[in-house]
Amino acid sequence: MLSRDYVGLNCSIARTLEVLGDRWTLLVIRNALFKGTRRFEDFVDELGVARNVLSDRLRRLTDHGVLTAVVYQDRPVRHEYQVTPKGRELTPILAALTEWGDRHYAPNGPPRLLVHEQCGGHVHVSLNCETCARDVEAATVRSRPGPGADAA
Amino acid sequence: MLSRDYVGLNCSIARTLEVLGDRWTLLVIRNALFKGTRRFEDFVDELGVARNVLSDRLRRLTDHGVLTAVVYQDRPVRHEYQVTPKGRELTPILAALTEWGDRHYAPNGPPRLLVHEQCGGHVHVSLNCETCARDVEAATVRSRPGPGADAA
Repeated sequence: MLSRDYVGLNCSIARTLEVLGDRWTLLVIRNALFKGTRRFEDFVDELGVARNVLSDRLRRLTDHGVLTAVVYQDRPVRHEYQVTPKGRELTPILAALTEWGDRHYAPNGPPRLLVHEQCGGHVHVSLNCETCARDVEAATVRSRPGPGADAA
Repeated sequence: MLSRDYVGLNCSIARTLEVLGDRWTLLVIRNALFKGTRRFEDFVDELGVARNVLSDRLRRLTDHGVLTAVVYQDRPVRHEYQVTPKGRELTPILAALTEWGDRHYAPNGPPRLLVHEQCGGHVHVSLNCETCARDVEAATVRSRPGPGADAA
């Protein structure tokens, strides 16, 4: 259980985790983004997730505008779930999770590779500095209050 | 509850989420990485997390080698939790979570900014292609089986 303190934290990580904070949610997004999965039954088959859990997660993601439900059949009405631009912007998060897992929990090599559609090259996540335009080492990243620091 | 299917998934995202998959865990890591928090009481004060939950999360992170417990006082024995190099490598994940939250859930501007220690510039996450060396648009990232695809 998360306390009220958690919900009240004025923090973009905490707010993102409010949307994504469940592991099934991230696996739903993974399959939607990287496998192109759209339909309820396909998510069930691929993930082995309970139907009630999946319904709940798809509803949350639709409420947050990460997925959008589009009718693809009229009788009976059936929806498929398409990734929105906001959902597509989750790609760096998924890529960063992948890279860390590959590095530390993939003794036989990466189970999947993220590749660049245009050239087939491996895609990596990096930290870049907007001012000096250089790659940034993790150890040199600092955090300081931003313009929204005093907001409720 | 996550089913056995989940645990058995041969996926670096799923394996990373096994370590990080709890929201409190990520906030503990956030404070350890970006605020330099080291001590149990400081995590309690900063996060408002229940002591038993915090104990459990710190133990998990220590078991996984993300943090290491170092004695800083003998009588009574007290530990502080230092970030390991493996833990430091979580920075791009935290940075990507921050960036998405800033974009979509920070109407007053980012509560905190990630900055480059050397020059003070803003740090951003990007996707880069190892082959063509270009920045990669999220919509052009594809996933395909890697060398560890057939591992148990």
